[in-house]
Amino acid sequence: MNRLHICRLLGIITLLIGGSMMASLPWAFPWFGPASEIEAHSIVGLLGAMAVCGLVGGCLMWIGRSSVGAKLFRREAIAVVGLSWLMAMVLGALPYWLSGTCVGLDDAGQPVTMSLIDGLFESASGFSGTGATVLTQLENERLVPRAILFWRSQTHFLGGLGIMVLFVAVLGMGSAGKTLMLTEMPGPGQQSAHSRMQRAAWVFASIYVGLCVILSVLLAVEGMSPFDALCHAFGTIATGGFSTHNASVGYFATQPGYNGPLIEMTIMLFMIVACTNFTLLYFLVLRKPGKLLGDVEFRTYLTIMAAVTLLVIGFGLWCGDFGGLPSALRYGSFQVASIMTNTGFGTADFDRWNSFSRGLLFLLMFIGGCAGSTSCSVKVIRYILFFKILRLEVEQIYHPTVVRHVRLGGRPLADPDLRKDVLVYFAIILLLFVGATMLLVALEPDSSWTDDGRSVRDKLVDCGSAVGATLNGVGPGLGLCGEAENYAHFHWPGKAILTSMMLLGRLEVFVLLALLMPSFWRSR
Amino acid sequence: MNRLHICRLLGIITLLIGGSMMASLPWAFPWFGPASEIEAHSIVGLLGAMAVCGLVGGCLMWIGRSSVGAKLFRREAIAVVGLSWLMAMVLGALPYWLSGTCVGLDDAGQPVTMSLIDGLFESASGFSGTGATVLTQLENERLVPRAILFWRSQTHFLGGLGIMVLFVAVLGMGSAGKTLMLTEMPGPGQQSAHSRMQRAAWVFASIYVGLCVILSVLLAVEGMSPFDALCHAFGTIATGGFSTHNASVGYFATQPGYNGPLIEMTIMLFMIVACTNFTLLYFLVLRKPGKLLGDVEFRTYLTIMAAVTLLVIGFGLWCGDFGGLPSALRYGSFQVASIMTNTGFGTADFDRWNSFSRGLLFLLMFIGGCAGSTSCSVKVIRYILFFKILRLEVEQIYHPTVVRHVRLGGRPLADPDLRKDVLVYFAIILLLFVGATMLLVALEPDSSWTDDGRSVRDKLVDCGSAVGATLNGVGPGLGLCGEAENYAHFHWPGKAILTSMMLLGRLEVFVLLALLMPSFWRSR
Repeated sequence: MNRLHICRLLGIITLLIGGSMMASLPWAFPWFGPASEIEAHSIVGLLGAMAVCGLVGGCLMWIGRSSVGAKLFRREAIAVVGLSWLMAMVLGALPYWLSGTCVGLDDAGQPVTMSLIDGLFESASGFSGTGATVLTQLENERLVPRAILFWRSQTHFLGGLGIMVLFVAVLGMGSAGKTLMLTEMPGPGQQSAHSRMQRAAWVFASIYVGLCVILSVLLAVEGMSPFDALCHAFGTIATGGFSTHNASVGYFATQPGYNGPLIEMTIMLFMIVACTNFTLLYFLVLRKPGKLLGDVEFRTYLTIMAAVTLLVIGFGLWCGDFGGLPSALRYGSFQVASIMTNTGFGTADFDRWNSFSRGLLFLLMFIGGCAGSTSCSVKVIRYILFFKILRLEVEQIYHPTVVRHVRLGGRPLADPDLRKDVLVYFAIILLLFVGATMLLVALEPDSSWTDDGRSVRDKLVDCGSAVGATLNGVGPGLGLCGEAENYAHFHWPGKAILTSMMLLGRLEVFVLLALLMPSFWRSR
Repeated sequence: MNRLHICRLLGIITLLIGGSMMASLPWAFPWFGPASEIEAHSIVGLLGAMAVCGLVGGCLMWIGRSSVGAKLFRREAIAVVGLSWLMAMVLGALPYWLSGTCVGLDDAGQPVTMSLIDGLFESASGFSGTGATVLTQLENERLVPRAILFWRSQTHFLGGLGIMVLFVAVLGMGSAGKTLMLTEMPGPGQQSAHSRMQRAAWVFASIYVGLCVILSVLLAVEGMSPFDALCHAFGTIATGGFSTHNASVGYFATQPGYNGPLIEMTIMLFMIVACTNFTLLYFLVLRKPGKLLGDVEFRTYLTIMAAVTLLVIGFGLWCGDFGGLPSALRYGSFQVASIMTNTGFGTADFDRWNSFSRGLLFLLMFIGGCAGSTSCSVKVIRYILFFKILRLEVEQIYHPTVVRHVRLGGRPLADPDLRKDVLVYFAIILLLFVGATMLLVALEPDSSWTDDGRSVRDKLVDCGSAVGATLNGVGPGLGLCGEAENYAHFHWPGKAILTSMMLLGRLEVFVLLALLMPSFWRSR
């Protein structure tokens, strides 16, 4: 294992993160809004963070200078991807800490600055595309400066780009095996694996940036300020969910000057698109829509979303959650799309809906979008394979000698380990979910509920939903961390657990688990 | 597939069930307690049920008369085991229906007789060793006759015997593959598979009946009436959990004339023994305790129980659930043993304990005892294999070429499909749990909670615990179906769902799933 090579690549990534902070700087200046003292702090914070990034990045590159031109092996690539996410989390928290951003006001009305864990939580939530926040007063310009709010949304953009380029294209993960995706990539037939990978990285990055640009322009046309348009575009395409308003996307429906329903429909459409396999989007760009429409995963993805939307609307109307059919259609479909794509934007407080809808949205968190997209969570393709495998296994109990293969879209899947891999992934997610939930229940004091006027009997569900919402990159959960609430209620051990869930979920667990095994680092 | 053979075997089982009802008859007569009108009804009910069993059994045997001496193949054995459980459920409900047993009193104080679904629920709960009940007034001699109460506990005995003989010995299920158990069976070396199976059936049945006899005598010596002693012995050894008192085993601590703590300790010890692999108990009978003490599964089983007990006692003391250390030790250890062994006897209302303990006990439901025992649930051995498999899989991500085998007690496991099988079982249980919970949430009206003075926000957890408690054969769940409550709160669709969960869980899902597949019945 070439550790110098790892150092150098991490150095490059550090410098890129530091450089990208420059994009947040301009928003501190008065031409985008009122000047205030804390905006000056934010300039100091961003410049300080950039200096640290430059220093750390420079050192790392200097240490690894002898490795220029070395080949990157799979184990090193895993190490780079895993470590770069950990590093991004720490570096991304620097602007919050150095600018003295406040989570909100305490009981005495005094501002409370972000603690160490608050910064890490918010930064991990940004880079992982989760959108869970500890900031309770986003619209108070004396507590949260504009430039920091922009940096917060920008971490979504960077994280999503990192996932598509580093994780999906380079590592070939984010799907049930490389086979399903990269071999599909259109291009000259006789390409090597390496150049196919490079090509995929470029294509994915271009589609990703292109979608961000298109959505920003659309939102600006629909009445948003450039600041809001950019931030919400980042939150949508990275399926993140950080908003610049306390009421999330619901803000635009209550304020004059915006076309609320139109904005909601635009964001909903782009959430759904961002969770489609980018390879299929590329085919669409190449004017081959047949590939998109014929894809088993894409069709299942839309079918699940439509079915759950119908159920949520039906049960919601029956239980009186909505005012009528129009509002049921509007809020039901937006919330289902927001949860299933793991974005987490909100237009309605679904925590007040009936138990069945709440349970359904909770389960939906564990499904997610398509492989090869910015979606977090388990992804539809794994469920398709899962059910196919189960069907075959039940048959094998009484026909033990018949050997059948898992087929996808008519073709048998070649990889013999695929069955096991899919099942193992489900098992790991389940274990993480159960283990983290129990740890959270044990460590989080009951007073977090009673102080907020809630029943302690909700603790099990609320903790479970908090872990589910962070592990799957959704953001809002149920109860204490519901759509109308936030993660500031949790104490630092709880925030630490949830921070690690966000990172584990984003990197599909194995990458970070591998880094924890001593035998991973042993040179052979 | 020889259907006539299946008919004949089902006929024999029907006659055996009918014949066994004779054991319940004597309790209707006044020498065991006060005479009452409803006891006369119970005689009618039992005799009627016996007549139906005789008729149905006779017909089935007559239909299949030509198959005497035919060989039993695996697919037929699966059909016999699955169908006999379904038939036992219906036949076992006859005494409840025909005797006019009452679930309790309605709001106007009028007795309510058991409905069709009530009878099936109670019967399935008995045969499957679950112990979930819809009877709210067990001690009211005008609502529930003694003879029927005895039949109720007797279904535990019959179900447990059926599991050990039909399911474990004949089908070789109830463990992660036959390999783990039957090859271990001591006996002459050169036995055929068939005679080994027969031997196992005899050994298991003898140990099972022996344990019941010993425990009945012990409980009678400790002050119980013969009636109570027999019923609680059945409930303990079959890990069922039906009691003859509303307060379950807790009754004996509150009444004069009983040594409560001693009775609790005796029952606790036998619950733990009943969940030990019967092959190991046989070695103990052969005076080879080394096999028992050296068994990986048995040691893990005790370790998990000890660890959870410590956690429950520790958190309980910290949160003030117990009066002090002595009562913490007493109630904590009993309740953990009762839940982990899937018995479900209660001495304390654990639903009032802290959230962490409640969550822990809920998870414990999904573990259960050892393979080759009367325990329902997933069983310890599957968890051991599960964690070993996961460890190997994580290593394989960065060392893809190294092939390693799962080892158990130092020996590699031969079966190549074992890894997949264990993972598939977890997947099926998870799917069943999630699916049934959502169905229950959807079908059970909110009024079941509000009418009982409970919050509808508990619905998700309560429904989940009801499904968990029935799927794993435990009995009491949380909230609406907690230790101090019962399943009478649920409406008939909910009871139907939970009834099917009990049967699916008891037969480890696959047997009943196979019966539902059309291709299972196709002759080849």
